[in-house]
Amino acid sequence: MPHSIVTLITDYGLADGFVAACTGVITQLAPGVRILDVTHLVPRGDVRRGAVILAQTAPYLPVGVHVAVVDPGVGTPRLAVAVAAGGRVFVGPDNGLLPPAVEAVGGARRAVVLADPAYRLPAVSATFHGRDVFAPAAAYLALGVPLDRFGPPVDPADLHRLPPPLRRVHGDTVDCEVLTVDGFGNAQLSARPDDLAAVGAGPGAAVQVRMATATVTMPVGVTFASVPVGELVCIEDSAGLLAVVVNGGDAAGRLGLAPQDRLSLRAHR
Amino acid sequence: MPHSIVTLITDYGLADGFVAACTGVITQLAPGVRILDVTHLVPRGDVRRGAVILAQTAPYLPVGVHVAVVDPGVGTPRLAVAVAAGGRVFVGPDNGLLPPAVEAVGGARRAVVLADPAYRLPAVSATFHGRDVFAPAAAYLALGVPLDRFGPPVDPADLHRLPPPLRRVHGDTVDCEVLTVDGFGNAQLSARPDDLAAVGAGPGAAVQVRMATATVTMPVGVTFASVPVGELVCIEDSAGLLAVVVNGGDAAGRLGLAPQDRLSLRAHR
Amino acid sequence: MPHSIVTLITDYGLADGFVAACTGVITQLAPGVRILDVTHLVPRGDVRRGAVILAQTAPYLPVGVHVAVVDPGVGTPRLAVAVAAGGRVFVGPDNGLLPPAVEAVGGARRAVVLADPAYRLPAVSATFHGRDVFAPAAAYLALGVPLDRFGPPVDPADLHRLPPPLRRVHGDTVDCEVLTVDGFGNAQLSARPDDLAAVGAGPGAAVQVRMATATVTMPVGVTFASVPVGELVCIEDSAGLLAVVVNGGDAAGRLGLAPQDRLSLRAHR
Repeated sequence: MPHSIVTLITDYGLADGFVAACTGVITQLAPGVRILDVTHLVPRGDVRRGAVILAQTAPYLPVGVHVAVVDPGVGTPRLAVAVAAGGRVFVGPDNGLLPPAVEAVGGARRAVVLADPAYRLPAVSATFHGRDVFAPAAAYLALGVPLDRFGPPVDPADLHRLPPPLRRVHGDTVDCEVLTVDGFGNAQLSARPDDLAAVGAGPGAAVQVRMATATVTMPVGVTFASVPVGELVCIEDSAGLLAVVVNGGDAAGRLGLAPQDRLSLRAHR
Repeated sequence: MPHSIVTLITDYGLADGFVAACTGVITQLAPGVRILDVTHLVPRGDVRRGAVILAQTAPYLPVGVHVAVVDPGVGTPRLAVAVAAGGRVFVGPDNGLLPPAVEAVGGARRAVVLADPAYRLPAVSATFHGRDVFAPAAAYLALGVPLDRFGPPVDPADLHRLPPPLRRVHGDTVDCEVLTVDGFGNAQLSARPDDLAAVGAGPGAAVQVRMATATVTMPVGVTFASVPVGELVCIEDSAGLLAVVVNGGDAAGRLGLAPQDRLSLRAHR
Repeated sequence: MPHSIVTLITDYGLADGFVAACTGVITQLAPGVRILDVTHLVPRGDVRRGAVILAQTAPYLPVGVHVAVVDPGVGTPRLAVAVAAGGRVFVGPDNGLLPPAVEAVGGARRAVVLADPAYRLPAVSATFHGRDVFAPAAAYLALGVPLDRFGPPVDPADLHRLPPPLRRVHGDTVDCEVLTVDGFGNAQLSARPDDLAAVGAGPGAAVQVRMATATVTMPVGVTFASVPVGELVCIEDSAGLLAVVVNGGDAAGRLGLAPQDRLSLRAHR
């Protein structure tokens, strides 16, 4: 099934010609395809962060071929794969980057290894598979080349997966972790509003947030402006997750929070 | 009237999936529309800077739907609006961001509140109206949905406006302020070459620039290379405003200038 | 010959409206044209770096009009030129930015000065020729206006050229320089694998890299993972050049390497 859209997420940065080499290859092979950038500023080699961004953005992307390249193992025997899910095809290294997005759009139907050299550039470098392997694969998938032509099938259950983030409700406590910190400094947690409800907290109440080095209490609110400028508040963010934020400020900076930091949440009474 | 172009300016940064969620929503709803990025690196929450960039760029943008989201009040009762001007439609929060651009293309003809839920995403988050309110509105406007279908009219004169920057000629002095500092370190002023002419200075002469902490004298020139590399010069910039620049250098950094700093200019004799 | 693609490389940064003013002008004049960004984060005024990025990316870009603006001499008598090469047209200032890319796609066939005001914006500013001169030229070239209509011919041999980087094999030593450092911290050299082979080193062997302040020995490998995480290795990069890299790390940062630093390479025995 042909696709008119290819999306791209990488850790290539925007200061070199790497992204343009990929978009150039796609545009040469599939001139009618539109390319939509997710981001190219995934921190270098941070597979976990790339996976989170793609999973939270994918439901809002048009159906298409979704290329993801955060690939510290480029040139090693790690597999290059394509995974069909929700009418879409995800393309990237088999290092844990794709499965959360695949789940977010309904789960994998089929997966294959990108093995056939007919769908790569004639010369494949050892260090730039974005340009030489993944971009051409995306172009040929967009043109309608069937998935099974690219290489042998892989059981989607066998794809490499990152360990799931901590999320546990026990007694009056929600244990969770910082899933990601966005550019505003909002600290997105791996817990959801109903976890907080399960321990008796919600909008209008207050929550005690215990971190490694300190415990802070803040209201549970609805938006940044639920508290005065400069104050902390715990809200449901646009991905449906809890987030610790500051109205007009940088919560993660103030609290010294970074991805994978562990937190415990309790209702404050 | 349908539009084939949607432009976007935000303070979302380029490191998260926020911009892609917006472009994804637009592309899903209006697949034929082209999206052109103005910038996504407006400093977080800096409505004034977003307004200046959009106003100076708008005359060079193709006619279309121009979305602007610098929205520290998201989730509060601030209005979401669409403003028709110069054959274009500007979409964004009613916080002062849009009026300078609206004026730059000829002034508002009509404005409405974006109120009808039919033109939003089915679920509107409390913190991401770019994705849930403004992007869908832009898509439906591009598809030709008439402005008055989105919600009740607003008198364009009642839209929120930022205070105008200082610009006053009295006697032999031009009082003005730093309007913006660009990525090269050029300090764009809120005064124009004819203000300088009114106090007897112009290309070929020199100007005394009095700042809070120091007074410097520099030639009035035409381009960076009107002075040797590394020297200060006052020129007319590409927006028709005066700018204090350094040939091959960073004028704002050297002089310690930041937006809204006040300056006085006089002819140097 | 009309073109459906215009590519852009500049040092304008992404935080101002400068890129959008250029893409806006192109889109207004040639609405059917697709624009592909190479990068806008060339360090300000760094013609050499812009030239290297464009030359290494151009072979992967679709045939089209390639605009390059790193132009510290804007507003001086430096020429604005268009150069036909390999079925493409390169557009930019005559300051050394274009020739390496022109060579990379087969060498110049013809070149002209962009002189005719009919193919500029009606008002040309002194400081923003990207918007007022180069963007309109690119649009008209894309629309199929013949090259010789833009202005008088220039002998391609007379175009300004940067001095070529050091690359010399003598005896058992390769003298070269750091050509560029990418966003991962990989230090790309001006020498090639066959230079190293000529002095008896290659994959499986080790190379002694003498820098101004120190000499380090590292294996010659194939990809980052040819060595354990955190270790140095010398590989052939995706442009076919030698590069000094660290598996999962920042080689240039660790070794204090910057573009134009001179190095000597020898086989380590």
